[in-house]
Amino acid sequence: MTETINLQRRLVLAGGAGGAALLASGVGLRAQEASALPDYVSFKNPDAMIVHSNNTLETERSAFGASSLTSEERLYIRNNVSPPDESVLDDRDAWEVSFEGVAEPRAITVGELKTMGVETVAMVLQCSGNGRAYFEHQPSGTSWQVGAAGCVMWTGVPLRAVVDALGGVAEGAQFVTGTGGEPIPDGIEPRDVIVERSVPLDALDTILLAWDINGEPISLAHGGPLRMVVPGYTGVNNVKYVNRVALTETETDALIQSERYRIHPVGTDGSPDYPSVWQMSVKSWITGPLESAVAGTNQIIGVAFGGINAVESVEVSVDGGETWEAAEFIGPDLGRHAWRPFVLARELEAGNYTIVSRATDSEGNQQPEEMEPNDPGYNHNGWRAPGVELTVG
Amino acid sequence: MTETINLQRRLVLAGGAGGAALLASGVGLRAQEASALPDYVSFKNPDAMIVHSNNTLETERSAFGASSLTSEERLYIRNNVSPPDESVLDDRDAWEVSFEGVAEPRAITVGELKTMGVETVAMVLQCSGNGRAYFEHQPSGTSWQVGAAGCVMWTGVPLRAVVDALGGVAEGAQFVTGTGGEPIPDGIEPRDVIVERSVPLDALDTILLAWDINGEPISLAHGGPLRMVVPGYTGVNNVKYVNRVALTETETDALIQSERYRIHPVGTDGSPDYPSVWQMSVKSWITGPLESAVAGTNQIIGVAFGGINAVESVEVSVDGGETWEAAEFIGPDLGRHAWRPFVLARELEAGNYTIVSRATDSEGNQQPEEMEPNDPGYNHNGWRAPGVELTVG
Repeated sequence: MTETINLQRRLVLAGGAGGAALLASGVGLRAQEASALPDYVSFKNPDAMIVHSNNTLETERSAFGASSLTSEERLYIRNNVSPPDESVLDDRDAWEVSFEGVAEPRAITVGELKTMGVETVAMVLQCSGNGRAYFEHQPSGTSWQVGAAGCVMWTGVPLRAVVDALGGVAEGAQFVTGTGGEPIPDGIEPRDVIVERSVPLDALDTILLAWDINGEPISLAHGGPLRMVVPGYTGVNNVKYVNRVALTETETDALIQSERYRIHPVGTDGSPDYPSVWQMSVKSWITGPLESAVAGTNQIIGVAFGGINAVESVEVSVDGGETWEAAEFIGPDLGRHAWRPFVLARELEAGNYTIVSRATDSEGNQQPEEMEPNDPGYNHNGWRAPGVELTVG
Repeated sequence: MTETINLQRRLVLAGGAGGAALLASGVGLRAQEASALPDYVSFKNPDAMIVHSNNTLETERSAFGASSLTSEERLYIRNNVSPPDESVLDDRDAWEVSFEGVAEPRAITVGELKTMGVETVAMVLQCSGNGRAYFEHQPSGTSWQVGAAGCVMWTGVPLRAVVDALGGVAEGAQFVTGTGGEPIPDGIEPRDVIVERSVPLDALDTILLAWDINGEPISLAHGGPLRMVVPGYTGVNNVKYVNRVALTETETDALIQSERYRIHPVGTDGSPDYPSVWQMSVKSWITGPLESAVAGTNQIIGVAFGGINAVESVEVSVDGGETWEAAEFIGPDLGRHAWRPFVLARELEAGNYTIVSRATDSEGNQQPEEMEPNDPGYNHNGWRAPGVELTVG
């Protein structure tokens, strides 16, 4: 729904003369301001979001600050297809998931899942295309900079607990395949649009079927009533509105798995011959100061994460990578898959600076200076391109 | 501002005819529903809050669930006096704090404080009177049950860093005294109403002067633009709108320190002869299931914290304290002053149960069965009274 349609809808709701009065009133002004956000994500903080399109909203870099977690009000949006009707949230516990590829397959409601186990994981949720704007070949798709990512806490039942309760993994299974419950429009081949993703069976021990985000029920926009979250894997693998979880011998043949979200050379088409976009790599970026600062001591802050691994350390350079200084982590460690805010307290004289950060994970992997290009512009983690040009005066 | 005044104000803003149209429209209905919350906390989630009065709102017990953190939308409200005008948030960095009792006293803006250091602490914020409803002598004041508490993350500058930058602690200082910037109404003796609290100098190394809560700027209702947070100390010690921080030889003589917030015997008056309400003790409560449940395996959840110490363990009893079983913590450990959600997976046959929880801190302190009464009803941490009567069918 566009801004205009959203505002028109409000006017219809308000009635003719009332609508006109609304426009001339303070209430009308507030509605108008809020409508820069698409209607279904009107709960977002408009100051914190860059609206690329109805289905793609990025968090403002400055909005991350030194935050350990990202609220739903500030979290990016990337929807491949339209969500189910919001009425599915009327009775969240009634949402049903069919489990297959286990010894005793059956359907289980969210209400029953809640009796089977409870765990919480803090993790980076990051769009596969985050940082696409930094590829020189200008891939098609949304030009995300750093803001198609956030760190959130999910609460749900460990998939392992459900699988164990269903008699364990069926023989031969090699993947966990989750299916999204978005309605498939009439006349469209389901395989072409269905959000169905397979990840390696290794992920079984960390996957949650989550009903809460940051301690509250997940909004429709972010996948409520139930989302399959796969810590350390890019956003697309975290299937919203999950209504089927299957332990499968092969990957799904849905286009979103077989052709899309593949790392293939520039100018080629995606296919199962190329690696799927799964695990995330070590990454970091500066969140402040971003444009200008006052001479003297500055607190240079940012966020860093290891992706599938824990982040071990992060360095900051104020001279575009010529020299590096160790930054310190801020706040509690939320676990292997979360990000950690960091800070470097640094004297800065008047002048121009190129500020960059470079993180290293627990396995010794360090962000590269430049990212090897791939056609769709996935998984960018080079440290040079997201650098900040800072004027200190 | 009451619910009625709030709605009237909206109507005035909307203008005469427009206002009438509003009332008849969907927009009007939304405004009406939201106005169950006082205007200044209209951002709260109405489903999660119990409104005791304009200045006292409690979080619904069920709203805690297994949450590691509490959002501002669900966090309790307890204001002793009216906050400053919301215009103080127009330029948060301009807010000024005078520092005294240091070698080089001076005033510092929030903007400058942000250059002096950044740290984040997760901590339980709990009203001194939380649990007052469970005292049998029915103390005066708000009858809080468990919900005048939450676990939040604050980001700000360590007070120690500021004090060091100002040349260190002045000789003889024994307390950190913070003063709230609430306006004092004309004709009232400041000492009678000023929110000025002194805590022991020991707290200097953990106090933050915080500008962010849960990664976002602190709302006016919760003390923005700047709050002095004292991890492990009850809510009143966490001074909102702090505009003066003094390292003092004696405690402030403000009534809120000298007579109020003292632990004194039932039937007596408060005075400096009695202990101040400072450090919090070990505590826990069940958050679900709360009234009824289905026979079979249930996940009994709750939250537990150690107060000034870390929480070490928590046990759950389904028979009112006859027998106890060890619960497991859920999710990441956010540090010594945070709470930890816990769970006990338990088979429950049809019948009636009294579910209670009992936490132990890192020093071996355990919640008592009953809390020794004190006149104002502070610091309740008995395990029996907050028990849950559960019907399983």
